[in-house]
Amino acid sequence: MNSINIAEKLSLFSDYLNPRIIGELNGQQVKAVKLKGEFIWHQHDNEDELFMVIKGTLSMHFRDKIVEVKEGEFIIVPRGVEHKPAAAEEVHMLLFEPATTLNTGNVENEFTKEILQKI
Amino acid sequence: MNSINIAEKLSLFSDYLNPRIIGELNGQQVKAVKLKGEFIWHQHDNEDELFMVIKGTLSMHFRDKIVEVKEGEFIIVPRGVEHKPAAAEEVHMLLFEPATTLNTGNVENEFTKEILQKI
Repeated sequence: MNSINIAEKLSLFSDYLNPRIIGELNGQQVKAVKLKGEFIWHQHDNEDELFMVIKGTLSMHFRDKIVEVKEGEFIIVPRGVEHKPAAAEEVHMLLFEPATTLNTGNVENEFTKEILQKI
Repeated sequence: MNSINIAEKLSLFSDYLNPRIIGELNGQQVKAVKLKGEFIWHQHDNEDELFMVIKGTLSMHFRDKIVEVKEGEFIIVPRGVEHKPAAAEEVHMLLFEPATTLNTGNVENEFTKEILQKI
């Protein structure tokens, strides 16, 4: 039981779209991830997802709107809702979601990360 | 589905030890809370708890050590572990824990909040 510094964890890697696990509790995981550019449209059939922005701005695309999520803000994407995370400039985020959550949801492609590193 | 500004939510109240619900997902809740002084020793038999510091410093007391959790850091307290949150100066935090979590855990006293406000 130690304190975990979020910025320090984010400084340990520089690649995009490759979430690292930085905490686990109650069957949920806290993940740190960086994104620049556009991810893919996908949905999670059984998991709600929380995206918290630590640095930069996340543009969360939904089929009917785009929500800008800025530093110090979060958004919850309910299960079953199609979304596409995007960021014009590099964004640093925490994800909070069940351990069962696959990053690409209902899609499996070259972005899919089956096994995540713990840091 | 909108972005939620953490500092803005924290600006909506000023009382201590009275967590507000600011998000819900997967049977878990995100709560905003302020603390100054010492809370009570307690434990949660069935829930792990995450404390994230948004402003100030949290001193998390365990029976064998005290962990300082600073702004931009979090700590996970596993179920069954006795702890006492404390803060010499006002601290602003997010909690992430199951919706079933009672703030005073295994203790019921004047600090116990059975029903939390959603803001």
